[in-house]
Amino acid sequence: MTLALIAGAGALPAALAANLLARPFVAAMEGFAPEGLAVDLAFRIERLYPFFNALHDAGVTQVAFAGAVRRPRLDPALFDPATAQIVPRLMHTLAQGDDATLREVIALFEEEGFAVTGAAEIAPALVPGEGLLAGSLTPRDQADAARASAIAEALGRVDVGQGCVVAQGICLATETIAGTDAMLAQVAALPEGLRPPAQAGKGLLYKAPKPLQDRRIDLPTLGPASVAAAAKAGLGGIAWEAGGVICLDQPAMKAAADEAGLFLWARKP
Amino acid sequence: MTLALIAGAGALPAALAANLLARPFVAAMEGFAPEGLAVDLAFRIERLYPFFNALHDAGVTQVAFAGAVRRPRLDPALFDPATAQIVPRLMHTLAQGDDATLREVIALFEEEGFAVTGAAEIAPALVPGEGLLAGSLTPRDQADAARASAIAEALGRVDVGQGCVVAQGICLATETIAGTDAMLAQVAALPEGLRPPAQAGKGLLYKAPKPLQDRRIDLPTLGPASVAAAAKAGLGGIAWEAGGVICLDQPAMKAAADEAGLFLWARKP
Repeated sequence: MTLALIAGAGALPAALAANLLARPFVAAMEGFAPEGLAVDLAFRIERLYPFFNALHDAGVTQVAFAGAVRRPRLDPALFDPATAQIVPRLMHTLAQGDDATLREVIALFEEEGFAVTGAAEIAPALVPGEGLLAGSLTPRDQADAARASAIAEALGRVDVGQGCVVAQGICLATETIAGTDAMLAQVAALPEGLRPPAQAGKGLLYKAPKPLQDRRIDLPTLGPASVAAAAKAGLGGIAWEAGGVICLDQPAMKAAADEAGLFLWARKP
Repeated sequence: MTLALIAGAGALPAALAANLLARPFVAAMEGFAPEGLAVDLAFRIERLYPFFNALHDAGVTQVAFAGAVRRPRLDPALFDPATAQIVPRLMHTLAQGDDATLREVIALFEEEGFAVTGAAEIAPALVPGEGLLAGSLTPRDQADAARASAIAEALGRVDVGQGCVVAQGICLATETIAGTDAMLAQVAALPEGLRPPAQAGKGLLYKAPKPLQDRRIDLPTLGPASVAAAAKAGLGGIAWEAGGVICLDQPAMKAAADEAGLFLWARKP
């Protein structure tokens, strides 16, 4: 059973590879190279079937997706005949949104005989179960996490984002296309008068998978940089759905949270 | 029947007053003065019952709310005995969110014998029914408006915001505490690579009341500044729920939209 990581940008592919017993085969989409991980094979969506064949030739039987990829702009001149045939199918699912598109990507790999697995399955240490990893929780924090979970679920159900920021019951920001860092920067930039007074509860960043997404792909991710950004936004901590979020470098996350006085809470949904 | 406008900040109170046959009595919360409208009586939440008595003394029997008010910071030293008695009730509803708080505000006025009315009722000309007010629509715009309506409904159902921005099915931003102008500024600042290519559809701003809100208070509002901000964000137009959104100065909105090449669409939900 040879595993290929289908890697996108960011630190996740290398973290995932470091948690595996054997070095995986690493494939990456052109333009989205992973950090700190050598790429065995670069591919383009326009030449998906030649890419499938190259994976077969390398003995790959199982694949896992890891890392950030944006909707690519396709170059019609580059299509091979087999991939050109599925363009209508790809266009149709792209129009139905991210959840549908990622399910279709999984289906395409499965149709080619690859077993598709997820980060939680191959590197369970990266996906914490229920527990308080740093700091302590007030009843206000617990209420804010419950409210944030309801908001994230509503947003996720319409295929929008995987997180939000809540303080004292008030939603300060929601995650959309620009991502978590942009959302936290918005919160940091909120005018003083719009935020509820910090002494009654600083609020939290919350992350969770979308209710209808396939959890084998695009799990939300947190890391030490998330802790720093949450602290900079004046928040009291980070909560997330236990078992549903990848945490990169948990010792560094805990150290950063302890130093900044933030809680880290893998919360049972 | 003497009407009092309970006015907040912004241009809406004056626009509403200009659409009435008789000049209303104008009351405004301290710190949230309306633009271009003289205030007959300033009040504070901490002295709500003395305020009710002053309205009765002025012969007021009907009230309408108009304009922006933020959650005020209360000064415990200022409470009169009657208002102090309802503080637990106010705190309880504040904790339940904006929809619950505004319903409670209406209930307090009704308990005092005031009839509470809404902008759509006293100035129906400010709340356009179904129709295309400027520009033209592509099928892509229509699909984006349908998607935006579903997102706004999901967000509104968890008492978060009254709008979002969608382009080619992708949610570029959602409205939260910072308001519509901040949301459009976020869209204007999106990195080029995150936005779908404009030639296939520029996207739109969508606004609608929250599904569970009382429509007599806090209807979403659009005006000429919204058109300018949508144009600056690179959008193709503005759509909103017909009969559910206040449009300030529609001739100026239409002129600004025509000049910038934007559509304005009061859409049947």
